[in-house]
Amino acid sequence: MTMADRITLAHGSGGRASHRLTRDLFVACFGGDILASLEDCALLTLESGRIVVSTDSFVVEPIFFPGGDIGSLAVHGTVNDLAMRGGRPLYLTVGMIIEEGFAIRELEIIVRSMKASCDRAGVAIVAGDTKVVPRGKADRIFINTTGIGVVAEGVDIAGGNGRPGDRIILSGTMADHGATILCQREGLAISGAFQSDSAPLNLLVARMLKAAPGGVRVLRDPTRGGVGTTLNELALASGVGVRIRELDLPVRDDVRGACELLGIDPLYLANEGKLLAFVAPEHGEAVLAAMRDDPLGREARIIGEAVADHAGLVVLETAVGGNRVVDMLHGEALPRIC
Amino acid sequence: MTMADRITLAHGSGGRASHRLTRDLFVACFGGDILASLEDCALLTLESGRIVVSTDSFVVEPIFFPGGDIGSLAVHGTVNDLAMRGGRPLYLTVGMIIEEGFAIRELEIIVRSMKASCDRAGVAIVAGDTKVVPRGKADRIFINTTGIGVVAEGVDIAGGNGRPGDRIILSGTMADHGATILCQREGLAISGAFQSDSAPLNLLVARMLKAAPGGVRVLRDPTRGGVGTTLNELALASGVGVRIRELDLPVRDDVRGACELLGIDPLYLANEGKLLAFVAPEHGEAVLAAMRDDPLGREARIIGEAVADHAGLVVLETAVGGNRVVDMLHGEALPRIC
Repeated sequence: MTMADRITLAHGSGGRASHRLTRDLFVACFGGDILASLEDCALLTLESGRIVVSTDSFVVEPIFFPGGDIGSLAVHGTVNDLAMRGGRPLYLTVGMIIEEGFAIRELEIIVRSMKASCDRAGVAIVAGDTKVVPRGKADRIFINTTGIGVVAEGVDIAGGNGRPGDRIILSGTMADHGATILCQREGLAISGAFQSDSAPLNLLVARMLKAAPGGVRVLRDPTRGGVGTTLNELALASGVGVRIRELDLPVRDDVRGACELLGIDPLYLANEGKLLAFVAPEHGEAVLAAMRDDPLGREARIIGEAVADHAGLVVLETAVGGNRVVDMLHGEALPRIC
Repeated sequence: MTMADRITLAHGSGGRASHRLTRDLFVACFGGDILASLEDCALLTLESGRIVVSTDSFVVEPIFFPGGDIGSLAVHGTVNDLAMRGGRPLYLTVGMIIEEGFAIRELEIIVRSMKASCDRAGVAIVAGDTKVVPRGKADRIFINTTGIGVVAEGVDIAGGNGRPGDRIILSGTMADHGATILCQREGLAISGAFQSDSAPLNLLVARMLKAAPGGVRVLRDPTRGGVGTTLNELALASGVGVRIRELDLPVRDDVRGACELLGIDPLYLANEGKLLAFVAPEHGEAVLAAMRDDPLGREARIIGEAVADHAGLVVLETAVGGNRVVDMLHGEALPRIC
């Protein structure tokens, strides 16, 4: 590859330099006939007309962090949004906004990381776009990923499908991603070896759906705003109350220590490789068992139930036996967490 | 609507402020049951499994300009990319990256403008995402739009489908968008009333396909890099030579004047509401006539032909009867044109 060391405005001009970057980096790494055709748009054939679509922009800072980078985060984030509707993710588009002067070596690392994440999740990048803005007009790199998946017949999963009695399952420990990013950013050297949990959840979801067809009613990945905010959204959408037990909420000890230092409740810190599920009570144990067979669900736990009381409210039974209402995240504590 | 006057980091946190912005501005304006469901992902049913997908990020500066703004530009840009594969655009996703402190009044104008453009093009916004970055980490607002369209049976349009003999049609005057943006940015007060040509081309394309089923082989909108760069791409993709005649290239007099002042060839300036078509020779006149019946194709012209000679090269017959090779745009002249 004979490219300059740094991204220049010419790489975003649509001219010869743009073409070279597209061909030598994006097409070379992402591969695939569809992308290689270099059309402005990808032509795809889907096996089913019932699809899910999701979009997310990623502005995380720092762009490289323990457990991942902005590229893998972007792929996993969009794959997970599709999986949370019971979709089988198939295709991604990638839109990059790059600051002039960004090192092409770093761009390569990000692109390779995206490719590895796509391979792990079984999705293909089918269209892309790159814009370059002058120095100081963006912060290094922002990435938008938009995903398309197909939904099998009979699958009906939505935030509004929860019912009283549903078991609420969390697939693993809380706050790993958020704590990692904040510690990196604040330069906190905290003892412990936690890292971002960023991971694609689609295969875990496939196991869950197989274990209890029709039994999984709600899926949602508790990213920005954390488990606390997400449960509030789901309680509102389903018109149910949510009761969770503090003692059942899994948090790594080192992450809990970091949260105390940061002064932030792990309930509000982002997760990027975890899911919350509402499961019909008779299927709760079967789904839990299936999850524990998956590397990404090994620490899954039933953390509470949906209830008919206090619709729209999330109530936490505290470790000492009291009750407190868990509100949505409020205020502007946590920019650029994803 | 009771929102603060300016975007704060809280609007991007995923918590209560994010929810309020989504509900009171995006859902209220864009409407639609799919978006209103506030899922992380939209569930759609398509009539055909043959789809086109395209993504584009928009970083245009200034964000408001004669003839449009970053919002309408984003909608038209993606609608047009879908139409250029013969797709019928149906759905868009919108990802916004907003700088802290951006005026909500301006965001509202942009959102309404996007909605108006969607209505004109007949597409719906089905999913969205908003990120906020601290002051100085982005320049006001960047917008990604990703689009999905369906492709009718038998339609086969691609950059590689051109053949020697094809008539090359340009749907109207060149360089209006690029000249408008550059004049605005340089503060050039140029006499004349030209403005961006930003417009959705899907209805024009539908007319063309109807006029000559199978006759339209290649469609491409000459955005970044202009007609010159786009013709080079198409010549390469189709493995044909391209001959165009300078005297047949439509440029408004005031735009030509602006280009002279700016020192830029209108062949390399972006268009945002124009298309280039390669049409089988026997259908050239029929397609041209159909285009002229459309408000966006009134000034359509046959500007040249694809030829078997000099494959991959674009040759311009100059006004004085000479020949010159038109290369792709080279260098970094024109950042943030779209």
